[in-house]
Formats: sequence, structure tokens, C-alpha cells
Amino acid sequence: MTVVSLNPSPLLTVYRFAPEKDLQVIETQAPADIFPLQQPGFVTWLNVDGIENQELVETICSELDIHPLVVEDILHTRQRPKIEPYSTFLFLVLNMFSWDADSRSVDQEQVSFIVAKDTLITFQEDIKAGKDVFDGVRARLQNPVGHLRLAGLDFLLYSLIDAVVDEYFTILDKYGEVIEDLEEENLTNPDTGTIERIHTCRRQLFWFRKSVWPLRDVVVWLSREDVDWISDAARLYLRDVSDHVLRILDTLETYREMVMGLVDVHLSMVSNRLNDVMKVLTIISTLFIPVSFITGLYGMNFVNMPELQWRYGYYVVLGVIGVVLLLMLWYFRRRKWL
Amino acid sequence: MTVVSLNPSPLLTVYRFAPEKDLQVIETQAPADIFPLQQPGFVTWLNVDGIENQELVETICSELDIHPLVVEDILHTRQRPKIEPYSTFLFLVLNMFSWDADSRSVDQEQVSFIVAKDTLITFQEDIKAGKDVFDGVRARLQNPVGHLRLAGLDFLLYSLIDAVVDEYFTILDKYGEVIEDLEEENLTNPDTGTIERIHTCRRQLFWFRKSVWPLRDVVVWLSREDVDWISDAARLYLRDVSDHVLRILDTLETYREMVMGLVDVHLSMVSNRLNDVMKVLTIISTLFIPVSFITGLYGMNFVNMPELQWRYGYYVVLGVIGVVLLLMLWYFRRRKWL
Amino acid sequence: MTVVSLNPSPLLTVYRFAPEKDLQVIETQAPADIFPLQQPGFVTWLNVDGIENQELVETICSELDIHPLVVEDILHTRQRPKIEPYSTFLFLVLNMFSWDADSRSVDQEQVSFIVAKDTLITFQEDIKAGKDVFDGVRARLQNPVGHLRLAGLDFLLYSLIDAVVDEYFTILDKYGEVIEDLEEENLTNPDTGTIERIHTCRRQLFWFRKSVWPLRDVVVWLSREDVDWISDAARLYLRDVSDHVLRILDTLETYREMVMGLVDVHLSMVSNRLNDVMKVLTIISTLFIPVSFITGLYGMNFVNMPELQWRYGYYVVLGVIGVVLLLMLWYFRRRKWL
Amino acid sequence: MTVVSLNPSPLLTVYRFAPEKDLQVIETQAPADIFPLQQPGFVTWLNVDGIENQELVETICSELDIHPLVVEDILHTRQRPKIEPYSTFLFLVLNMFSWDADSRSVDQEQVSFIVAKDTLITFQEDIKAGKDVFDGVRARLQNPVGHLRLAGLDFLLYSLIDAVVDEYFTILDKYGEVIEDLEEENLTNPDTGTIERIHTCRRQLFWFRKSVWPLRDVVVWLSREDVDWISDAARLYLRDVSDHVLRILDTLETYREMVMGLVDVHLSMVSNRLNDVMKVLTIISTLFIPVSFITGLYGMNFVNMPELQWRYGYYVVLGVIGVVLLLMLWYFRRRKWL
Amino acid sequence: MTVVSLNPSPLLTVYRFAPEKDLQVIETQAPADIFPLQQPGFVTWLNVDGIENQELVETICSELDIHPLVVEDILHTRQRPKIEPYSTFLFLVLNMFSWDADSRSVDQEQVSFIVAKDTLITFQEDIKAGKDVFDGVRARLQNPVGHLRLAGLDFLLYSLIDAVVDEYFTILDKYGEVIEDLEEENLTNPDTGTIERIHTCRRQLFWFRKSVWPLRDVVVWLSREDVDWISDAARLYLRDVSDHVLRILDTLETYREMVMGLVDVHLSMVSNRLNDVMKVLTIISTLFIPVSFITGLYGMNFVNMPELQWRYGYYVVLGVIGVVLLLMLWYFRRRKWL
Repeated sequence: MTVVSLNPSPLLTVYRFAPEKDLQVIETQAPADIFPLQQPGFVTWLNVDGIENQELVETICSELDIHPLVVEDILHTRQRPKIEPYSTFLFLVLNMFSWDADSRSVDQEQVSFIVAKDTLITFQEDIKAGKDVFDGVRARLQNPVGHLRLAGLDFLLYSLIDAVVDEYFTILDKYGEVIEDLEEENLTNPDTGTIERIHTCRRQLFWFRKSVWPLRDVVVWLSREDVDWISDAARLYLRDVSDHVLRILDTLETYREMVMGLVDVHLSMVSNRLNDVMKVLTIISTLFIPVSFITGLYGMNFVNMPELQWRYGYYVVLGVIGVVLLLMLWYFRRRKWL
Repeated sequence: MTVVSLNPSPLLTVYRFAPEKDLQVIETQAPADIFPLQQPGFVTWLNVDGIENQELVETICSELDIHPLVVEDILHTRQRPKIEPYSTFLFLVLNMFSWDADSRSVDQEQVSFIVAKDTLITFQEDIKAGKDVFDGVRARLQNPVGHLRLAGLDFLLYSLIDAVVDEYFTILDKYGEVIEDLEEENLTNPDTGTIERIHTCRRQLFWFRKSVWPLRDVVVWLSREDVDWISDAARLYLRDVSDHVLRILDTLETYREMVMGLVDVHLSMVSNRLNDVMKVLTIISTLFIPVSFITGLYGMNFVNMPELQWRYGYYVVLGVIGVVLLLMLWYFRRRKWL
Repeated sequence: MTVVSLNPSPLLTVYRFAPEKDLQVIETQAPADIFPLQQPGFVTWLNVDGIENQELVETICSELDIHPLVVEDILHTRQRPKIEPYSTFLFLVLNMFSWDADSRSVDQEQVSFIVAKDTLITFQEDIKAGKDVFDGVRARLQNPVGHLRLAGLDFLLYSLIDAVVDEYFTILDKYGEVIEDLEEENLTNPDTGTIERIHTCRRQLFWFRKSVWPLRDVVVWLSREDVDWISDAARLYLRDVSDHVLRILDTLETYREMVMGLVDVHLSMVSNRLNDVMKVLTIISTLFIPVSFITGLYGMNFVNMPELQWRYGYYVVLGVIGVVLLLMLWYFRRRKWL
Repeated sequence: MTVVSLNPSPLLTVYRFAPEKDLQVIETQAPADIFPLQQPGFVTWLNVDGIENQELVETICSELDIHPLVVEDILHTRQRPKIEPYSTFLFLVLNMFSWDADSRSVDQEQVSFIVAKDTLITFQEDIKAGKDVFDGVRARLQNPVGHLRLAGLDFLLYSLIDAVVDEYFTILDKYGEVIEDLEEENLTNPDTGTIERIHTCRRQLFWFRKSVWPLRDVVVWLSREDVDWISDAARLYLRDVSDHVLRILDTLETYREMVMGLVDVHLSMVSNRLNDVMKVLTIISTLFIPVSFITGLYGMNFVNMPELQWRYGYYVVLGVIGVVLLLMLWYFRRRKWL
Repeated sequence: MTVVSLNPSPLLTVYRFAPEKDLQVIETQAPADIFPLQQPGFVTWLNVDGIENQELVETICSELDIHPLVVEDILHTRQRPKIEPYSTFLFLVLNMFSWDADSRSVDQEQVSFIVAKDTLITFQEDIKAGKDVFDGVRARLQNPVGHLRLAGLDFLLYSLIDAVVDEYFTILDKYGEVIEDLEEENLTNPDTGTIERIHTCRRQLFWFRKSVWPLRDVVVWLSREDVDWISDAARLYLRDVSDHVLRILDTLETYREMVMGLVDVHLSMVSNRLNDVMKVLTIISTLFIPVSFITGLYGMNFVNMPELQWRYGYYVVLGVIGVVLLLMLWYFRRRKWL
């Protein structure tokens, strides 16, 4: 294995490999170091990490004769996943997602693939500080007898796409947790913030789904079309990726249904709490308003009110009040309010 | 019939049968006992019960030259039902359901089918303690003149799929009961738990439907495609299964509509109960607040209040109070609140 | 016309007719009486009334070499409407509906058709006490110069399907009445039962629609497919039936929309009634609580309360109370609560 | 121009025209006057005004050898718009709408077209008292050098369909006004009647849309199918009609969205009004209930209540009451209730 | 470059260009100045600014032999975006949008394109006071070595369509701001106006989407159909426009979902506020109604009420009232109302 590491934080990484030959790795920041990209008998993978340096991207693309529209799509991210065949190369855009634990939402990053004869170029939107979703593929490339080294460009492309799609399952799990938390919050302590959080989650799932949906066509295009440079073996693997995408979409559909349910449950919770509040008010008012009327009656200052002179008038009134209260309580009990 | 039972709780069961020949049954835990799997002139069915022992599954699959992706799908369950043709075999995934009476929900189990020439291998996810959905097929295999013994692999495959689909009708019935119970609860004693239970039910139906939906394509693929090893006779039976799947989906659609209706009824019930509570409060307050004002009036301590000196002032006030109360009651009666 | 009536309440009725020949009618309970079913040059229609007698159905089917799956479908009702071509015959399932005036819902009955060369067999699920939806067809068969007698099997099949579909319009009218009653009830006296009835209606319409929907495919299959035994003339008539089915589905769609609207109106009615109740409470409380405070003020027993000694203190207070009440009433009037 | 007007309020109107020939117009009530309908070299348009006289319709149709099913469709109105090719003619059904200003809803009328070689027959459901949607076409027929006279049957058919579709735009405008009125009513004075009117409007739009929807297929059929009697020039015009139909459907879709929005706004208005009512109640109760308690306290008749003897006790209490009231008002102000 | 500016505010602008030739620009108000439009070897673009002058439009169209239906579509705006091939030219309608900052809604303007051999005519609905969406294209035409000058008619057409579609992104951003403002308003100060504004926004998005939706078909038609005058290079660029349209539709879908969410959040906010109001009422009433009853009790004027004579009766009662109040407060605290 030849590793030419020209820079501690390289922007450009080239991997060249062929069955039974040494793996060549070049890590550099200068485009000059990597040309000519192709070497006869080798498969070349150039990864460009971070597209902030527009000039660099444009240099590489112009060197390789890439159509200006493609360069534009690489630089202006937020593209939908898509596959576009050009006469000399194939252009692929995918969206990579990573979970941001603080905001409990996903960060989106665009990865563009240019697939030409024996050459694959990938452009990643952000410069990765630590780990990268492609690290696994890099590690497997080191293995001289691994399937990846022995197979050709098609299998490398599959491995990278698969790495991107596998990350989606992690995102799905995170959203599963968010939904469970919302369900918990809904039942124990629903407030106005809850409905907001529910809708934020709903919107994020919607965005996520929109990025996954066109991916299906991309993978189907690769695995079905008469693309002669994709072997039947790799096609089986791509069919497997297509299957994963379907499962992700299925799960997203279920999540959406669950989030819709959360809204209904929330509204029902709020209504029920209103009912509880109103019941307390009604019980207290209904108990004391009538008996207060009685006390008011005998608080009047008429000269001629015979009951006031009765020896046990007060006790009779106390009794009447007690009976009224008991009747009310019995009524509430019967209506199951207590 | 030759039965070689090598273990009381076997993991591997092999059935070999052909018209006018003895049925061979092997029950074992050692893969070695079952190879070579195929015997000329016989149809072989190998059932692997429980896939916890990954090594065992991998051993069998490598022996039979099964693609690694298929092995992965067998071991990592929660696949969508699907059918995938490979060059030397056909791979099928179905989901089996059983009703868990305690949680009133379904348990899902994946069954994977590998169909090769004269050989069928089935992998069941769980080890069945007692009964198995395939027991009926096993019993019918015992009958030397039964249709199953006389027909070939296609009819065996149909019988197993049919056994899985027939179980779905049981699940449907159970969900029908759950919905009826929820309707009952909704009308007699709706609370916050009710809306939760309604949504749990809705979600489960959604999951269930998602497992049944792709099954349609699987069965249609088998019954329509130019699969030469499926006879016209078996095709008719598969069409019947396809019909069952449609009926299940129809019923699920209706259940979903019913559950959606439950939400509306629940919200209406809660609103109506709030109305009832408010009516009681309003009646009591409206009856006694005005008359309390009157008593309050004559409870004032002004020196010069001629009414207080009237001989029958007290009785006049009592009369006025009575008239006010009666007017109020008449008003409530007219508005149909009483 | 030859009528051989072997039994007052026959289960089996055979009609044999051909242009310019006498109509033969056999009514019997014994299958033996009707075989051989076919007679050269005649079109034969066998109607089996009630499938409770399973043995009878199985006897007839085995005599005519009907596939076991078809027999199963005939006996296990609740099939979706469908059309299934077999090598020697065509199998058709329709659902017949009749209105049950007591429960205000429909009763469903399955009619199975087996169409073979010059022979039509119909199986009706229930034994009809009085009138039968096919009576009209029977009457028209009596007419020796009627179109039905002169045309062949295709026109007979059309007439029977048409008779079934025409009944659907009656059902539609009944549901129209139910919806109108619900609208009336909603506006005059909505209660919890109303929302329940609305949802029952909604569910029934859903069921009904599900039975009509696949019928479209059945009729389209008959009228479009290269079915050589259906003449162009009959095809025009079948196209007409297809048109009727579309109109029924259209109307059902509108009914559904109307029922959905009923739910909204109901919830709005309940909310408005709550508003009414609350307004009464608020008006009464707002009128009397402040003035009660004033009376309470002068009911205090302080030794030094100069107003109490005023000659016209009482009248001043009465005036203040009057002014407060009038202000409140003016406020309510301005807010349009009165 | 030859006009043979045999009756002041004719039922049957025949127009015969050809380029460079005189226009022949016959207005009559007797079918005998119009036969033979066709004249060599002329295009003939027969309009039948009102189909109440069934016998007349049947006479005409039998004379022209029209299929009984078509006659039935002409007489039993409420058909969906449709196009049906028969061997010797083409049958078309359209729905015409006119706005009823009193009920603010549309009146539907069926127009049936029979298009044969050089002959067009139209059946209008109602006898028009005053103006007719076809009057414009009639006027343009009078113009000897107009496009309509010079072109053939295809252009006449287009002109009539166009006249029908153009009326739809008037209806759309009317519904636009109804929706605006409902929006106004919703915001100023929503009551239970409002939600009813909203749903009536929604239902009517639904009915209207259902009549327009199939029209699209009709026009597409005419403009695309290899109908050799429609010239390319007329086809362009039919494409234009098809475009109008699409615009009508688009607008209907928007209206529907707007009406759905009205329901949401209505429910929100009702809720907000409830909130307003409750706020008034709460403010009044919260202001006076606590201070009434204070007055009640000093209205007690205990012998030993030192405060009662205080010289300025009364004024202290008045001060406390004032402070409590001010605190409450400040609290309401802070919560933005005032 | 030849610029013939015949008028300070020209209605008609002609651009004629060809590779390696001078750009000719004519600005005039008289149609006579621009004919003959075509010059051999040049590509001609005629822009008509404002269609108020119907006569002018009709003159130009008749000169160029444009079909009357097209003229009608140009003059009667509010067409759906569409593409219509005629025998000698292609007719295109697009909708241009500009943001009206005052009403916070979009203004729609129709642009019609007539594409003939080497000639492009554009009709803009309004006379632009200041800037025009086509200004960028005009500027690029000035550049003698720019791609636009060197390429032909196809690239000019693409540039104009692209200019229109790029404006849509500005509109999208504006709507994004409106939705954010509504979200803010919803959470801080929701009132009846809020729900109205939400629905106005929803309706506008719906209208906007309806104008964008058919645009997809237009662009797809141009880029896919065997239109021989569009070069492969231009086709790639049109594919890019098609991609933009898809992204706009995706974003609109998300906006719609967000607006739907706003309605739910609004209703939840209103309910929660009602809950808050009710809680305050209930707390105050529940605290003071019972203790007011106690004071009422000892305000009665019975002669024989021993407690009144107790030395510490008053203090006992004060204590009881304090205990009741504390109990109530504890209860509210436990229910998390305080």
C-alpha cells in the first residue's frame, strides 16, 4: 500500500486499487498532486471533502471536463437526490443525514457522485471533523483480499451508497425516540409547547421523507437500467439497497401516522383537562351557592321574621343545609363526577 | 413412512415425498443429518425452526450455495414481504402473525422461503413451543393419497402460504373484537385512556396492513409470471390466496374507517359531557345568584329601610324569590335543559 | 311452455329456451330431475335458491365438473364481486342488497354465476320468501317474442346482472333518506346518539361501496374482453350497466362527502350550544355578582358606617344598583349577547 | 334563407346549411315536417326542445334508427357526461347548468347529442322560456360568410359544446360570490346556519365538479381519437375547449380548498367567542367574589368582633377592598385579558 | 451593435443576433418598423411589452399568420401554463410572479411565447415600469462572445424560461417569511385574525402551486420530445430547469404541510387559553365560595345562636376559614393548577 499523505487535514483523497495490486492512497490539498487521475488497470476513487473551496471544485471539474450544470449542482447544495446520465459520465446526488443531539433534529449534507469509466469522484458538502460515513468503506479497501478490492467500480459505488443509506436507519431510530418522548409528554404534562414539538417533529419527518423518496428512483435506475458497467453481482446488492429504502419509507409512513395520532391525543387530553377543571368548579359552586342562599335568607333584617325567634331555628337551618349538601353529593356520585 | 426422530425438540425437520412412495421424515438438530438434501424423484421440504442459532442457518445456506444477501435477510428479520428471484433459486419472505391475548396485539414472526428445484426450505423466526401454523400442512402430508402428496413442490408452497394467510383472518377477527370493545367503552365510559387505546389500535392496524400489502405482489408474482415450475392447477389455488389477501386488505380498510370514526365519536362524547357539566353549573348559578341578591338587599343595615318594618315584608320577599325561581325553571324547561 | 312443478317451494328452477321453441320450466328439489342440464339447441338457466343445503350444491357442482375452489367460494359467502375465467366455464360473484326497514341498513346476499357453453347456473344465498330480484327476468322469459327469448345466453346474463344493479338504486334512495333524517336531527336535536348514527351510516356506505367498486371491473371485463360468446349487441347493454355502476359510485362518493359534512355540522352545533349555555351563565353572574357585593357592603356590622345613618342611603344604594344593572345590560346588548 | 315557422313555440327546429347555399330553417311541432332529415350536400341540425313529450322523442329516434339504450339515456336524465360510439352514430351527453338566483344554487339540465353523417340532433331537457345557451350559435348560423356556415358538422358540434362549457364560467363566478359572502358572514356574524350554508355550498361544488370531470374525457375523445369526420382545424378548437374544462376543474379545486378553510375559520371563530364569553365571566367573578367574602366577614353577628368597634374599621375595609380590586385588575391587564 | 430606438418607452423590442455578427436592437411602438421580422442567418426575438393594446397584438399575429385561438389565449390571460404545437409554430404560456410587499401576496402576469423557425415572440401581460425579469437575458445578449449569442434559438428560449422560473425561488422565500411570521404570531398572540391569515396564506400557496404544476409538463415536453430544433446541449439545460420546478413543487408541498400544522397549533393554543381562563375562574370561585358560606352562616339573625356569644367565636371562625383556604390551595397545588 502506497500512502502519500501530503497534509494533516487533507481535502482530496485518492484511492487507486486493482485486484492483486497494491492500494495507492494520496491525501493532499493541491489538485496538481492527483492528476492524471486515471491509471490503466486501476479503479480510482477521488473524495473531495468540503466544497467550501469553490475554486478547487471548479478546477477539478474543468480538468475532468464536467458539464457546468453539474458543477453548479455540486456547489449549490439542497438538490433532490437524482441521477443524471451525461454522455461521458453519470452524475448522482444523494443526501446524507446526521443526528444533531442538541436540537434533536437532522443535519443534511449533500454528497455528489461522478461516475466515469474506472473513476469515481465524490464531493462531500462538509469537512468532517471526526468520523465520516465513508470510513467503513475506506477500512474495507485496505483489505487486499476483500470483496471490495477484488470487485470493480460498481461495487465501490454500491458500498458508498449503502453506507449513506445505512446511516438513515440511525436517524429513524432517533426519530422513534423523539416520538416516544412526545407520547410520554402528551400523557403526563401536555402544554402548548407539546403541540409545537409535535408539529416540528412532523415537519422534520416530512423533510426527511422528501429526501429519501427520490432515492428510490436513483437506486432502481442503477439496478435495472441496461448499465453495462454494473455487474449482475453488484445489481443484486443494489436491489438490496432498494429494499432498505422501501423499508425506510414504510417506517416513515408509520411515524407520520403516529405523529398524526399524537395531535388527536393532545387535543383530547386538553379537552379532558378542561372537563376536569369545570367539574371542580361546578361541584364547589353547586354545593355552596344554594346553601349560601339559605344563610342569606336568615341574614335579612326584617322585623317580623318568626323563624328567627324560634328556639331551635338555627339548628333547623343547619340541618336543612346539611341535607341539601348531602343531596348534592349524592347527585354528583350518581353522575360519576366524584 | 420413515421417521427418523433424532431429538425430542428438533430444530430441523425434513420431509421427502413423491407420489406412490413412502414419506420420509427426519427430525434433528445436526445439519449433517440432512445432507444431501435432494434425492432424485423426491420433493424435499426442510423446515428450520428458530433462527437464533445463526451458525446453523449459515451452515445450511453455505451448503446450499445461498447468496450472502439472502442469508442476511433471513437473519435480520422485520423484512417487508417480498419475492426475489436469484439465478438458481427463488427467495420469499412472509410475515406470520399470532395474537397475544394479554397485550391484545399481534406478535410478528418472519418466515423465509427458499424455493429451488424440487426443494423448499423454510426458516421460521421463533421456536414454537406448542402448535405451529404449518402443523396442518404436516398432517396433510401424512396422507399418502392426499392432493399434497400427489402434487409437487408448487402445491406444497401454496399450502404453506395459504396456512400463513389463513392465520390473518384470525387476527382480523381479534381486531374486530378490540374495535367493538372500544366502541362500547367510548359510549359508556370514555376517558383519556380511551383515546390512547384507540390510537394504539389504529397504529397496530397500520402495521398489520403494511405487512399484508406487499404480500399481494408476492402472490401475484407467483401466480402470473411465467414461472414454469408452477402448474396451472396450483396457479388457480394461488389466485385464490390472492383473493383472500384482497379481502383482508378490504376489511383492514373498513377497520381503519371505523377507528377514525371512534376518534370523532370520542371527541363528541367529551364535548357533550362538558356541555352536561356546564348545564348543571349554569342552572344552579342562575337559580340562586339572583335570589341571593334579594336576600343580600334586605340584609343591609340601613337605618331607614321601610320594607323591613312592614308586617308582611318577609313574606312578600319570600314570594318574590319563589316567583323568580319558578320563572327561571320555566326558562330552563323551555330551552330543554331540564 | 312446459312447466314441470315438482314442489311447492322449489329449490332448483330450470329454464330452457330457444327462439321459436317452447319455454321449458322445471321446479324441483331433487337434483336428479334436472340432469342432463344441457339440451342441444337450447339455452339453459338453472337457479339454485338458497345454499344452506351444502350437499345439494356440491352434488350439482360435481356433476358439472366445477373446480373445488369455486364450490368453496359459492358456499363461503362474503366474497368480493369478482370474475374468474376457468378453462371450461366462467365464474362470477355479485353481491345483492336488500333494504331492511327495521334496522335501516342493508342485508347483503351473494349471488354466484357459473357461465358455461349454453348454460347459466346461478346460486342465491338466501331462500326468498316472497319476491325475488330475478322475478322480472323470469316474467320476460315467458314472452315468446321477447328479446330475451330470441337472444342467447349473453343477453340472459346481462338481464340478471342488470336486475342486481338496478336494486342498488333503491338502496341508494334509502340511504339518501337516512342522510336527510340525520341532517334534520342534527339541526333540531343533536345528541351523542346522533354522532353514533352518523358514523353507523358512514360505515354502512363504506361497506356498500366496497361491494360495488369491484363490480366495475367485472362488467368491464365482460364488455371489453375478447369474449366471443358475448355478441356486440349484448356488449352495448353491458356498457350501459357499467355506466350505471359508475353513477352509483358517483352518488356514493357524494353521500360520503355529505356524511363527513354532518360530522362537522354536529361538532359545530355542540360548540354553539355550549356557547349558549355559557352566555346565560355569564349574563346572570355578571349582572348579580357586582350588585350582591354592594348589598354585602352595607350588610357589614361596623359601628361607624355613616352611610347607614343617611336618611336616603338605602335609596341611593338602590339607585346605584339599578345603574350598574343597566350598564351591564347595555354592555351585553352591545356585544350582541341579548 | 328559408324559414318555415309552423308554430309560435316550436319544439323541433331544423337548420340545414352548406357553403354558398341558403340557410333553411324549419320550426315545427310535428315530426312529419322534418323528415327526411338529410338532404344531399347539406349539414342538418335538429334541435329538440324539451323531452317531456316522450312519444315525440321516441318517434324521431325510431325514424333515425337510434338504439333503444340511447333513447333511454335521452329520456332518463341525470346521466354522467359521456361519449358512446355506436356503429352508425356517436352519442354524447353533456350537462348544462344555469344559476338559480333565489336558491343560490345551480339547475342542471341534460343535453344529448346524436352525431351521424352530416346530421346532428340535440335534445334539451327543459323547454326554454326565454333565452337559450344555443342562441349564440343560431345567430352565427345566420351569417352566410361566417366560419360556422362554411365549415361542416364538426365545427357546429364544437360550437355547441363550447356554448355549454362557456356557461360553466358564469356558474363559477356565482359560486365565487357565494364563497365570499360566506367568508364575510363567518367573520362578522357566524352562527349555526353558517356552518350549514358552508356545507351546502361544499356539496353543490362537489356535484358540479362531478358533472364537469367526465366532460374532460369526452372532449379529449373527440379531439384525439382518429375520428375522421373531425377536421384538424376543428380539433384545434376542441383542444381549446379541453383547456377550458381544465381551468374550470382547477378553479373548482381552489374553491373546495377555500370552503374547507371556511369550516376551520368557523370553528376557530366559535371557540374564540366562547373564550370571550368566559373571559367576561371570569373577570367579573374574580373581581367581586373575593371582596364579597370580605363584606360577608364583617356581616357576621359575633358579639366579640373588635374590628367592628374600631373608629375607622369601615374605611380600612373599604381600602382593603380597593386594593384587592386593583390587584386583580393589574393581573388581568398583565395577562392581556383587558 | 445597431440600436434603433424609436421611442423612449417602447412597446416592441426586436433583437436580431447571429454568431460573429453585430447585434441589432430595434425599440419602437409601430409594428411597421419591425417587419419583415426574419432576416436570413439571424435569430430574431421580438418582445411585446404589455398587451393592453389589443389591436397591436392582433396586427402582429395576423402578419405572422398566428391561429386565432392563440391570439385569444394571448389576450385573455389567466391561462394555465401549457405548450401547444401548431403546424408552423409552437405556442407556450407561462405565468410570471412578482411579490407585492404591501399585500404580502403575489401578482401574476402571463407571458406567452410563440416559437417559429429562427424567431421567438414573447408577449408580456403588463408594461414594466422599472426592472423586468428578462433584463438579465438582454444584458447577456449584449456580450458578443457569450454563450447566448453563439447558440441559437433554443438557448434563448431556455434562458427566458429559466429567468421566469428563477423568480419563483424569490416568491418561495417570501412565503417562507410569511409562514414564519404566522408561526410567531400563533405562539405569542393568536386571535381570530390569525386563522384568517393562515387560510389566506394556504389559499395563495394553493394558487401558486397550481401555476407551477403544469409547468413541469411544459419543460418535460421541450426537453424530451423529438423536437429537432432543440440541441442536445440546450436539452441538458432544460432538464436542469425541470429539476428546479421539481424542487419548487417539493418546497410548496412542505409549506402546505407547515400551514396545515399552523391550524392545529392555533386551535390548540385557543383551547389552552380557554383552559387558563377557566382555571383562574375555578381557583377563585373554589377558594371563596365555601368560605363565603361560612360568613353567611354567622351573618344570620337567629336569636339563639350560641356560637355568636362565644368569646373567641370570631377567631375560631377566622381559623376555620384559614384552614379551608389552605386545604384548597394544597389541592390546587397537587393538581398542578398553581
